[in-house]
Amino acid sequence: MIAILKNGTTPAQTEHLIQWLKNMNLDVHVSHGHEVTILGLVGDTSRVDIELLNSLEIVETVKRVSEPFKQANRKFHPEDTVIDVGGVKIGGGHFAVIAGPCSIETEEQITEVAMAVKASGANILRGGAFKPRTSPYAFQGLKDAGIQLLLKAKEASGLPIITEIMNIRALELFENVDIIQVGARNMQNFDLLQELGKTKKPILLKRGLANTLQELLMSAEYIMSEGNENVILCERGIRSFETYTRNTLDLSAVPVLHELSHLPVIVDPSHATGKASLVPTMAAAAVAAGTDGIMVEVHNNPACALCDGAQSLTPAQFDALNTKLRKIREVMA
Amino acid sequence: MIAILKNGTTPAQTEHLIQWLKNMNLDVHVSHGHEVTILGLVGDTSRVDIELLNSLEIVETVKRVSEPFKQANRKFHPEDTVIDVGGVKIGGGHFAVIAGPCSIETEEQITEVAMAVKASGANILRGGAFKPRTSPYAFQGLKDAGIQLLLKAKEASGLPIITEIMNIRALELFENVDIIQVGARNMQNFDLLQELGKTKKPILLKRGLANTLQELLMSAEYIMSEGNENVILCERGIRSFETYTRNTLDLSAVPVLHELSHLPVIVDPSHATGKASLVPTMAAAAVAAGTDGIMVEVHNNPACALCDGAQSLTPAQFDALNTKLRKIREVMA
Amino acid sequence: MIAILKNGTTPAQTEHLIQWLKNMNLDVHVSHGHEVTILGLVGDTSRVDIELLNSLEIVETVKRVSEPFKQANRKFHPEDTVIDVGGVKIGGGHFAVIAGPCSIETEEQITEVAMAVKASGANILRGGAFKPRTSPYAFQGLKDAGIQLLLKAKEASGLPIITEIMNIRALELFENVDIIQVGARNMQNFDLLQELGKTKKPILLKRGLANTLQELLMSAEYIMSEGNENVILCERGIRSFETYTRNTLDLSAVPVLHELSHLPVIVDPSHATGKASLVPTMAAAAVAAGTDGIMVEVHNNPACALCDGAQSLTPAQFDALNTKLRKIREVMA
Amino acid sequence: MIAILKNGTTPAQTEHLIQWLKNMNLDVHVSHGHEVTILGLVGDTSRVDIELLNSLEIVETVKRVSEPFKQANRKFHPEDTVIDVGGVKIGGGHFAVIAGPCSIETEEQITEVAMAVKASGANILRGGAFKPRTSPYAFQGLKDAGIQLLLKAKEASGLPIITEIMNIRALELFENVDIIQVGARNMQNFDLLQELGKTKKPILLKRGLANTLQELLMSAEYIMSEGNENVILCERGIRSFETYTRNTLDLSAVPVLHELSHLPVIVDPSHATGKASLVPTMAAAAVAAGTDGIMVEVHNNPACALCDGAQSLTPAQFDALNTKLRKIREVMA
Repeated sequence: MIAILKNGTTPAQTEHLIQWLKNMNLDVHVSHGHEVTILGLVGDTSRVDIELLNSLEIVETVKRVSEPFKQANRKFHPEDTVIDVGGVKIGGGHFAVIAGPCSIETEEQITEVAMAVKASGANILRGGAFKPRTSPYAFQGLKDAGIQLLLKAKEASGLPIITEIMNIRALELFENVDIIQVGARNMQNFDLLQELGKTKKPILLKRGLANTLQELLMSAEYIMSEGNENVILCERGIRSFETYTRNTLDLSAVPVLHELSHLPVIVDPSHATGKASLVPTMAAAAVAAGTDGIMVEVHNNPACALCDGAQSLTPAQFDALNTKLRKIREVMA
Repeated sequence: MIAILKNGTTPAQTEHLIQWLKNMNLDVHVSHGHEVTILGLVGDTSRVDIELLNSLEIVETVKRVSEPFKQANRKFHPEDTVIDVGGVKIGGGHFAVIAGPCSIETEEQITEVAMAVKASGANILRGGAFKPRTSPYAFQGLKDAGIQLLLKAKEASGLPIITEIMNIRALELFENVDIIQVGARNMQNFDLLQELGKTKKPILLKRGLANTLQELLMSAEYIMSEGNENVILCERGIRSFETYTRNTLDLSAVPVLHELSHLPVIVDPSHATGKASLVPTMAAAAVAAGTDGIMVEVHNNPACALCDGAQSLTPAQFDALNTKLRKIREVMA
Repeated sequence: MIAILKNGTTPAQTEHLIQWLKNMNLDVHVSHGHEVTILGLVGDTSRVDIELLNSLEIVETVKRVSEPFKQANRKFHPEDTVIDVGGVKIGGGHFAVIAGPCSIETEEQITEVAMAVKASGANILRGGAFKPRTSPYAFQGLKDAGIQLLLKAKEASGLPIITEIMNIRALELFENVDIIQVGARNMQNFDLLQELGKTKKPILLKRGLANTLQELLMSAEYIMSEGNENVILCERGIRSFETYTRNTLDLSAVPVLHELSHLPVIVDPSHATGKASLVPTMAAAAVAAGTDGIMVEVHNNPACALCDGAQSLTPAQFDALNTKLRKIREVMA
Repeated sequence: MIAILKNGTTPAQTEHLIQWLKNMNLDVHVSHGHEVTILGLVGDTSRVDIELLNSLEIVETVKRVSEPFKQANRKFHPEDTVIDVGGVKIGGGHFAVIAGPCSIETEEQITEVAMAVKASGANILRGGAFKPRTSPYAFQGLKDAGIQLLLKAKEASGLPIITEIMNIRALELFENVDIIQVGARNMQNFDLLQELGKTKKPILLKRGLANTLQELLMSAEYIMSEGNENVILCERGIRSFETYTRNTLDLSAVPVLHELSHLPVIVDPSHATGKASLVPTMAAAAVAAGTDGIMVEVHNNPACALCDGAQSLTPAQFDALNTKLRKIREVMA
């Protein structure tokens, strides 16, 4: 870590700061440059509060020379991580097609969708049992019962399953869930991350709506530093001023995360755009951007033709999409 | 709730949608206007998924005529809520001056700061025991031991205390804490909010970095709908493109929240700006904007003169600030 | 246009508003629904100030039923517009590969790059003569002399050329320029847009850093309403909180603009990402998102190997990119 | 300027970069620190393209040690600038109360408002003649005729006047205008800024919706570097994700701009909030934040009682506001 001191800093102030840093068990190398003095901090700088240091009046700027994430860092782990999910591999050239309904409603619904998406090429089934909702009065999912229905669909289809956790107290319900999802709103629920780090379950970690890519990697680090290296990153749109799409899908996240980290990166175009008409196009773009998988909402509700306009694809649309994605993956290889 | 259907919607599609809505136990009033058809939905519309409805292909737009928050809504509760915190009142003309260090470090530190800020006019003591940190390797606070030290400072100073909770499992530690703080990152940790709603403790709910004011009120509603009406809202800056300040303090939040809700509104200029030099000015602006209180960081570390440049005020700066704020409150009254 | 009046609006207030609207030569259809009154406004609503109407105390919400853009609107012009640029077509299946250096420096530089990018498949040459710079002290481009050098490169290579205009007074210099570019900072320089609307030149209109897609289309409308229908839209990244990339490339803009408008849509991954390592990936993603062309920076400076790390590609990197893009376009067709 | 090179940079690469920098007439001081090499660049670094330098692969980070703005910089001009506007002073303790209608409509309207706001304590009259509008079909103002009406109101009231310029070709119309306003959309219309820099007129420069405070100061520098030092900065809200207010008023801009610059800073709460009910509160907050003046919309349209809900204040509301602001200014002094 480098700290650049402001022009005009007195020797006494500089010495004071150096002592403060040494008290944190850091070595401090001083270079007196033109106009500025530069301190090189050596040792375990991960405990230094960079915001505090940066806000000191005598400090011009602080810069970490090494990224603050270690276990998620590609520098220390150059090969792609490949995560095994009930026999399905993700990352390092293995592509995940995660599909299913937004919410689990009935055994018939989840099982039918499971069979349909499997037939079209999905290799993992998604379905929401615990639903984070802005309003306390909105439907919050079938909860425990939803998990049970999802497990039946897993048995019927043979597909591994993914569903979201919202509270660590519910962990035992997830025993036979193959991937535990942490939603965007919980990306910095650090206690939840640490508890999940004590399991060996694959964790799909969604980027928060206002979180930087470095913050996403630091949250992955929370899980990994507890011993669980099975983290899958997920870009699902950030909040911007544009209102035509529900969120702004930041596809640059895919190559950036691949540069910085060895972890697999998944894209969720359904939640990002909020419009079924945009999902296939943005899924294709995600594949061209190098994503290790996509997660899309597919419903199967013949009684509700209306729902076709929402963010979920019909099984037929999903089938057509998969054919297209395969072709793109072939030319990208 | 009003749904406007697109020009060109067929009678069959309209009928289909109406049946779907009626299945949710809603009455549907149809008006055929020029170009458009308008559906007025009557009944408990709080369970309608507005995003889903809005995304249907035949729907032009959906508009709630009544706000989705009920208990936090000023329309149903015109008088300001006044919250009693260990004898100190907040809201309805009662002003909270919450001060203390960012992190609790030692008994001496927290007690000295407590006595100093009390002497300057603070009526509530703050101090962090559980610290949400972006990095798992950063100092996470003294945790349980920190709470114990804070309780000692409470006893010594007689000031009620506020500190942050990060995990509902720690709730029993907060028995003698006067206000439980929910941090910005947990504003949409709905399970935590619901659990806190089952207590009677005053809850200070901080706005998330990318959350709208309506979302903040919906999170308050999560707490209130479980039976706890003692919610204090807190504006602490949102994330924007501007990097000179740590966050962008959205002071318009104060009059807007006062228009929409009867709950008290507090402003935290320390975290919002991240710079001690800006804190007094923005605290003054917050008072002129009608805030029901401020929460500022004050440190007391004669051994660390360096820290004076950070976001914390010295006791002397805090004392001067309080004198200024009193004058502004007098002319605002 | 629909205006929904608030519950509690008096008949006198309603009548007052109706008269005000009728004074703008609008017909007003009134529907009294449950809880609300709805006004349907018929006539030339493009002159109604929607923000003013929306801000009236008795108005709950206002909604345009038809988009405010007419000539750029796909509803009134279902087929893709194909723009002819010196014999090269853009849109409707015709793909533009626009390449060249950020700034024009010397005749040798611009001509060498022109020949190199042509050999790799570029069909339009770009190069900056007037450079908008944040600082008045930074290099502002070769200006008039730069245009002359660009014209020489056009002659030498046979490629049509594009370059940016910053001031309508310079228009005569652009006589032999094939596409005039309006930069992101001038997207709402309405006087400039209107003047360019009086020419017949193809105009490449870049999205502003904080502008919505609807605002982009309204700016296209400024040009088209003056008689110039040759507008090419360009997504080049928006400003968000993420700082790893220079801007956030909003690729959803491509399918959204194609839904809303018949105009061609180009993507500039160089300015959006600011990093050469990300340009090929995001160019590929743009093609999969359905872009009608890409605009990328290519330099040719053997004396400056350092520049390889910046946002410009080397001719060799550009050549490899083009091969990849052709393959993706083939499978997308 | 400091450039920190990445760990692993070869001596040849370092030497290559140093030569490149020396070719820009810079002296380069090299410090070999632990892990990194640091280059201190001395000389006229204002011409260095910091984004280009930063994007080189071997460069870890670049940091300007001195701000890139010179004439607007408080470091080189410690005293507040006081600008004389037709006898009215702004800055350095002199407070501007700028009021008037959004658009100039008739002689009667503008003159009546002028007399009313003067009576309430306004010392400068505002009114829009050239109106930047998102839509080409919306009312664009009375243009030349509007300026003539404003001049009549100036004569009748004795108040100096401010109005917006959109095109440098209209400059001669502004001969008797006391302050020329540059709107938010033109904040980076650099050619316009430079032309205005050649006049001696006071310029009110509004912050762009997505522009940082440093960019605002760089745009001021464009005007000042041409010889016109009479620049007034104006905060009028930035674009964020919050939609309840039209824009997000960033009041921290006031103390930050006062720290960085000696130029006067004005706040426009009318455009920032878009709601009359919020204007008085945010004007009061702006005064407490230390603004050198406010600019508020006041209309006087007895025939249109409806307009009371919009962003404009009535003369009576404006009168009450002024009384309140005077009291706050007294206690702030």
